[in-house]
Amino acid sequence: MMKMWGGRFDQRMDSSARQLNSSLLVDRRLAAQDVEGSLAWAQALMLAGLLPADEHAQIARGLRIISGEFSGGKFSFAPEDEDIHTAVERRLTELIGPVAGKLHTGRSRNDQVATDFRLWMLQSLPAIQAELADLQSVLIARAEAANATLMPGYTHLQRAQPILLAHWWLSHLWPLGRDRDRLDDLTKRISVLPLGSGALAGTPLAIDRAALAQALHFNMPSQNSMDAVSDRDFAAEFLFCAALMGVHLSKLAEQVVLYSTAEFGFFELSDSFSTGSSLMPQKKNPDVFELTRGKSGVLIGQLVGMLSMLKGLPSTYDKDLQEDKALVFTAYDILRAILPVLSGALQTLTVHPEHMLSSIDSFMMATDLADYLVDKGVPFRDAHKLVGKVVRTAMDAGLGLDVLPIGRYQAISPAFQADVFAVLDPMKSVERRNVIGGTAPKSVKKQIQMAKKLIQA
Amino acid sequence: MMKMWGGRFDQRMDSSARQLNSSLLVDRRLAAQDVEGSLAWAQALMLAGLLPADEHAQIARGLRIISGEFSGGKFSFAPEDEDIHTAVERRLTELIGPVAGKLHTGRSRNDQVATDFRLWMLQSLPAIQAELADLQSVLIARAEAANATLMPGYTHLQRAQPILLAHWWLSHLWPLGRDRDRLDDLTKRISVLPLGSGALAGTPLAIDRAALAQALHFNMPSQNSMDAVSDRDFAAEFLFCAALMGVHLSKLAEQVVLYSTAEFGFFELSDSFSTGSSLMPQKKNPDVFELTRGKSGVLIGQLVGMLSMLKGLPSTYDKDLQEDKALVFTAYDILRAILPVLSGALQTLTVHPEHMLSSIDSFMMATDLADYLVDKGVPFRDAHKLVGKVVRTAMDAGLGLDVLPIGRYQAISPAFQADVFAVLDPMKSVERRNVIGGTAPKSVKKQIQMAKKLIQA
Amino acid sequence: MMKMWGGRFDQRMDSSARQLNSSLLVDRRLAAQDVEGSLAWAQALMLAGLLPADEHAQIARGLRIISGEFSGGKFSFAPEDEDIHTAVERRLTELIGPVAGKLHTGRSRNDQVATDFRLWMLQSLPAIQAELADLQSVLIARAEAANATLMPGYTHLQRAQPILLAHWWLSHLWPLGRDRDRLDDLTKRISVLPLGSGALAGTPLAIDRAALAQALHFNMPSQNSMDAVSDRDFAAEFLFCAALMGVHLSKLAEQVVLYSTAEFGFFELSDSFSTGSSLMPQKKNPDVFELTRGKSGVLIGQLVGMLSMLKGLPSTYDKDLQEDKALVFTAYDILRAILPVLSGALQTLTVHPEHMLSSIDSFMMATDLADYLVDKGVPFRDAHKLVGKVVRTAMDAGLGLDVLPIGRYQAISPAFQADVFAVLDPMKSVERRNVIGGTAPKSVKKQIQMAKKLIQA
Amino acid sequence: MMKMWGGRFDQRMDSSARQLNSSLLVDRRLAAQDVEGSLAWAQALMLAGLLPADEHAQIARGLRIISGEFSGGKFSFAPEDEDIHTAVERRLTELIGPVAGKLHTGRSRNDQVATDFRLWMLQSLPAIQAELADLQSVLIARAEAANATLMPGYTHLQRAQPILLAHWWLSHLWPLGRDRDRLDDLTKRISVLPLGSGALAGTPLAIDRAALAQALHFNMPSQNSMDAVSDRDFAAEFLFCAALMGVHLSKLAEQVVLYSTAEFGFFELSDSFSTGSSLMPQKKNPDVFELTRGKSGVLIGQLVGMLSMLKGLPSTYDKDLQEDKALVFTAYDILRAILPVLSGALQTLTVHPEHMLSSIDSFMMATDLADYLVDKGVPFRDAHKLVGKVVRTAMDAGLGLDVLPIGRYQAISPAFQADVFAVLDPMKSVERRNVIGGTAPKSVKKQIQMAKKLIQA
Repeated sequence: MMKMWGGRFDQRMDSSARQLNSSLLVDRRLAAQDVEGSLAWAQALMLAGLLPADEHAQIARGLRIISGEFSGGKFSFAPEDEDIHTAVERRLTELIGPVAGKLHTGRSRNDQVATDFRLWMLQSLPAIQAELADLQSVLIARAEAANATLMPGYTHLQRAQPILLAHWWLSHLWPLGRDRDRLDDLTKRISVLPLGSGALAGTPLAIDRAALAQALHFNMPSQNSMDAVSDRDFAAEFLFCAALMGVHLSKLAEQVVLYSTAEFGFFELSDSFSTGSSLMPQKKNPDVFELTRGKSGVLIGQLVGMLSMLKGLPSTYDKDLQEDKALVFTAYDILRAILPVLSGALQTLTVHPEHMLSSIDSFMMATDLADYLVDKGVPFRDAHKLVGKVVRTAMDAGLGLDVLPIGRYQAISPAFQADVFAVLDPMKSVERRNVIGGTAPKSVKKQIQMAKKLIQA
Repeated sequence: MMKMWGGRFDQRMDSSARQLNSSLLVDRRLAAQDVEGSLAWAQALMLAGLLPADEHAQIARGLRIISGEFSGGKFSFAPEDEDIHTAVERRLTELIGPVAGKLHTGRSRNDQVATDFRLWMLQSLPAIQAELADLQSVLIARAEAANATLMPGYTHLQRAQPILLAHWWLSHLWPLGRDRDRLDDLTKRISVLPLGSGALAGTPLAIDRAALAQALHFNMPSQNSMDAVSDRDFAAEFLFCAALMGVHLSKLAEQVVLYSTAEFGFFELSDSFSTGSSLMPQKKNPDVFELTRGKSGVLIGQLVGMLSMLKGLPSTYDKDLQEDKALVFTAYDILRAILPVLSGALQTLTVHPEHMLSSIDSFMMATDLADYLVDKGVPFRDAHKLVGKVVRTAMDAGLGLDVLPIGRYQAISPAFQADVFAVLDPMKSVERRNVIGGTAPKSVKKQIQMAKKLIQA
Repeated sequence: MMKMWGGRFDQRMDSSARQLNSSLLVDRRLAAQDVEGSLAWAQALMLAGLLPADEHAQIARGLRIISGEFSGGKFSFAPEDEDIHTAVERRLTELIGPVAGKLHTGRSRNDQVATDFRLWMLQSLPAIQAELADLQSVLIARAEAANATLMPGYTHLQRAQPILLAHWWLSHLWPLGRDRDRLDDLTKRISVLPLGSGALAGTPLAIDRAALAQALHFNMPSQNSMDAVSDRDFAAEFLFCAALMGVHLSKLAEQVVLYSTAEFGFFELSDSFSTGSSLMPQKKNPDVFELTRGKSGVLIGQLVGMLSMLKGLPSTYDKDLQEDKALVFTAYDILRAILPVLSGALQTLTVHPEHMLSSIDSFMMATDLADYLVDKGVPFRDAHKLVGKVVRTAMDAGLGLDVLPIGRYQAISPAFQADVFAVLDPMKSVERRNVIGGTAPKSVKKQIQMAKKLIQA
Repeated sequence: MMKMWGGRFDQRMDSSARQLNSSLLVDRRLAAQDVEGSLAWAQALMLAGLLPADEHAQIARGLRIISGEFSGGKFSFAPEDEDIHTAVERRLTELIGPVAGKLHTGRSRNDQVATDFRLWMLQSLPAIQAELADLQSVLIARAEAANATLMPGYTHLQRAQPILLAHWWLSHLWPLGRDRDRLDDLTKRISVLPLGSGALAGTPLAIDRAALAQALHFNMPSQNSMDAVSDRDFAAEFLFCAALMGVHLSKLAEQVVLYSTAEFGFFELSDSFSTGSSLMPQKKNPDVFELTRGKSGVLIGQLVGMLSMLKGLPSTYDKDLQEDKALVFTAYDILRAILPVLSGALQTLTVHPEHMLSSIDSFMMATDLADYLVDKGVPFRDAHKLVGKVVRTAMDAGLGLDVLPIGRYQAISPAFQADVFAVLDPMKSVERRNVIGGTAPKSVKKQIQMAKKLIQA
């Protein structure tokens, strides 16, 4: 069979050019969607009176056989198949003869591929949504199990204030919630059907595009055929969502890598989710978290590839657009590979609460000390400065705040009284942060309830 | 006045380090929001019983003076002002004395700056929304004025099929609609209040954060303090929206640049929106469109800067985050500079319908010829091939399809009849594409109606 | 066989984690280099007296068998092969028994993979260099064949001044020269041998690393083991070179796409290097040039992926680095696919000199008109303004400069004489630009000579 | 004074468009270079007999006055100055009258701005080179001062093997060496003079461009005028160099941030180069290192902005190119801001050798244990596995390798003898890595010598 567009051409295409031009290695992944779209198109042709019922039946039967061949792994591609669309039509011709030639009536590969791609996205995003929800569930489970475990909280990677471990787990849940939100918003923008836009000007056939959209489970048909065949916003937006997910996961990964060091000693990875060194047998490497972090860089790259490709395109459909799918598939596969592994790795990770507790030094309650002074009527700014002096005094003396003699305190401010030491209890510090979103046990309990509601939604 | 955090430190900061560290040149832009946030915080302190009414009144009065100084351009920064927050507090102390020191009670610059930044975004995005709507209005007006003007439609920048000029104008409207949609979706994610999250663990004060959110016109308070101080998703998402807007505008720009060449000759830019050459006095350069295209590359770069910066951050607040604002402001200013100029340039652009019409050659109706054969019962694939032969015959003979003798047609297929030439009228070709989103005058009229509804919404 | 690092571990690795962790699908491409590096290492061990000659012979024999299996396509991977290094060692053990276990002495996968990767680069870049040179040769050949063909030169895509077509062809040669230069500079930075750096601290064996470098055709051994195992500058630099090549090729592609439109009509692509439309049989699409342009966006993305991945890595070797190879291979394959196709497509492209000539309108000699006035003693700025008036007068009158009556010229400036019309001959305009790098035929001849010398070097 | 290109135009430019179009805020930074290039051009015109000596003298005098005004901060821009070139010419006209109008003869802003920009780069890069060398000197000084201090070396951020602190310092020196190398290579590519290329086709004047290149200290004139006015490779290449420098500095920064945590405790920042917290007075934040890391993300963004902007430009000079300078200046300023601060911060950082030493646990000598077995004739792979068992035995027993009874060793392999414990001395471990690039004190001493030679070169 010749290429779809071979009629006018004298010469065969150069083989290296043909190879460059071929998209089959990538777009074969759209096989199921291509068949599905073709089935709907054939039906639309029939409903418009453009395809007799018997021919429609033949085409539909052929397409279903092809569908079976794909799902059964039995479809064989031919050397001249240029892309998934020609492959399907070539096979259809083999199966049902020349009537296959009627399927492409009033359709173009431009609206066809845009339809297939959107269909694939609509059918594939739920899996990511589910894996995000799974990861959120793991975080909630870990937060619940963490109970009242205390750990140091960091800013600038310096010990800052004590927090609940549960609060830390949950701090990684909300970004995933926003990711899911963004995917939901994206979905409504994907769900606009291009089919019926022809090459660029709209199909000349009296197709009911609203019905066609419904048949393929799209929210609505596109409103401008030129835009419809060139719009790849949905692919770019997905890649952004993926890149930002990558950023979230890389931040989680970075922290797990840190907390799994000997120096922090907060976490120990399960053997099932870590690797060793070929040269250093004592090592237990957090490879899956490092790969997560590394792959988040790759995800940013996929997004850039798409945006740079799209920028400044001169017309409706330009062949540059063919690059869109490999970028999306790569990003999608990265997320599908990372997400379940992270869920597993976090689920099986061992926590060392004793190391966490011992890392909370008395200086982390310095803010509480300032608050103590504020309670005694010292303006915050002054309190802040006074506590700064106390901290320096203690450090110079090589003492913790909890063992600095009360006299040294009072030398700095008479507002300090004997009750000052009670303030230095980390659990007290945590309990005081009892606002919405705060780290107090009561707040965290409410947070868990909200999180649960959210992921069930 | 010393730095906010000076209490503990022995030595002054190195001057080059201080300069590197200072964010004032950038974040002074948040002045109004910083004051607004502080007013709300002071009120929240009072409502929680932590600030006597008279002190609150003093602080509020001072802040309002500062607000006036900013809006009147009379605020003067001091050399030691490290960022907008310290500048405001320094000035407040000058104005009302030590009671100013109470304002920062239970607050941190971490939750403060996140709040200021979100507030700025909430207040600044509507201007972009409005300018997008303006540009859409221009496109609609031009589409309405274009009436039944025909032009060649392109794919791969090759002449493909005739379209209505109105359809072309509108093809650039829908992407902007998606941009506005995305900004709307983003807005709900911005509208989550961080204030009350303290440095990372939540404020220890009994602040009613839900009321505080309401006072500052946020939808809700954040649910996890650690996430709240580190979340810059909204900034990244804005930069993505901006980059994708840039892509849309660059595509429009590319096409205007092309259509304004002598070779295409479709458009002529108004003198008010073009520039000349210092060496070639006859030139009329589409600079504003080229700058649009170039700046869309810069927008992609801002997005990458943000994502790379965020990737793998180790804790809640890290100073890396300080880079967030310059990236957002740059992108925002680019859009604010481009959008009105594009509206003006498109509004004043002269169209040459006669050049458009003369560029529609008979070969652009080849698809209609194939459809003609399909109407006569030839399967589409065969029709496609037969028309391919007709095209080659005509090209070899150096003739248009409209003057190729009927005998030459019939030698290729007897299905061709004398009525074939009627098919080659471009307006007829356009009129046949009368589906939703098609280029037929009737479809375009409906499209305009839908577009109008949309931008009024 | 167990994983290289299995000794200490209790549990098997989770299968999804193992899959995420596996790099074999990517790094199997380093098979030849891995064997080559291992042969050199075995020899170095022997020379250092750490491997008896007979054992060395066994290992070398085994490695050569493996090498043959790879090159003959007969090597079979086992399910437990984690990467190419473990695969080779596993197979070596099968072939020669436990003595295989001595090969990894004093070596780590960290220095091994860095060595393999650099070796691959050193052996693979020459092919790109050769294809760049081929493309340059095509450009020279086309320039020579173009002879004295005139064409319009553009700035801002507006007709600016006449140029020689030969000059245009050559304008795309020099960027490729810089690309080759950059690859040369890069090569010296690749040619630094990491082997012998161990995991991070250097091998404890008395290996002569300078001799080892020589044996593997590297310029020198690395000077710091920690840097050596983490340095991926060469990969990032290659990706930059590739991205900038992409930019050059995309610019060429953009221009070919433009010049192949019906509107410009300068070029016609050979059927062997263009494609048709499934719906519009008359179309001849410049797909290979569009793909070049699109893939140049993807190349930028690969670079970003690498830089984002590298940014802020915390230690010497982190698993994030595993992402390096897929990025490089993708970019490399893109260039290898594009370059020969571009050479072929440019070689077979048909030029339409008559369309080029007819696109040179008299206004393009406006600068020459200004120069004419300068020759008559008018300062350039005044000349520029006077010619501006002439241009406007002619345009208002709907006349070319060549048919504008001399009286209209003289009404603007008496410096215009009857000889002014000779200036409007485009070939004369071109001939006057006879400086180094100018478009005059003589300059272009010299340019061709320089270009020839360059690509032979 | 009117715009340079005003002659032909009827209408004034729209004010928003004029603002968008203006580049003065950015390119005023090229003032000195613009004057310098103009002086050289005036001289070239005189030498070519195109400018009488007295007029040349007038122009040169005027330009020198302008130069003085710029350097003295006394130049005042006028509202109608569109860019630096028009500003200089406007002022020159004010100073010397109409003869100023002769300066622009045979020149275009296209070759002029490319010349200015390259000149700026050639004159500005040495400062970065010097600051890189300074930073290298600091690293060497710290390495020398570190003497025999031991510290843990990490891979995957897991403790791996002991190293010398001096070796760690130097591991950050070599990447900077490559950066300097790349800047050197870039410099030769910058040093190609565009002046004399006119707008695109070459100047029609008989200018000696080789002499002109020499006068402006360029290596050579450009060889193709069309390439010369559009080539921005040097800017892109600089941005890549800057981005990769950013990556190197961010890696250093990441490690300093880590080593300055309470958990690692290796480093303590000087007060002069760290900041405190407004809420937590005990904090000492590594802001300058965090900003370095964050800004390295911004640098990647600048590079992407440039490459995306350049991709697919349609002609020689397009206005998109105007975006080039802001991107380069931003990157340049970031490096100039970061580099000296890093030098200062590293110079003043306090090291805690005792914390480093105490972080070297006995398991880090596991590799040495394997090497011990290899010395006793055990093949490496077997040795690796046996040591793996020893490590697990020790860990299960909660003992270090140095206190695990010899019987437990021998139960795993009889090859273990009483001398095994000597192997567990970290300094011994370090001393054994005495190859080129190894961490042994002798190797490091040689490395320091090489490094010193390098930075003096």
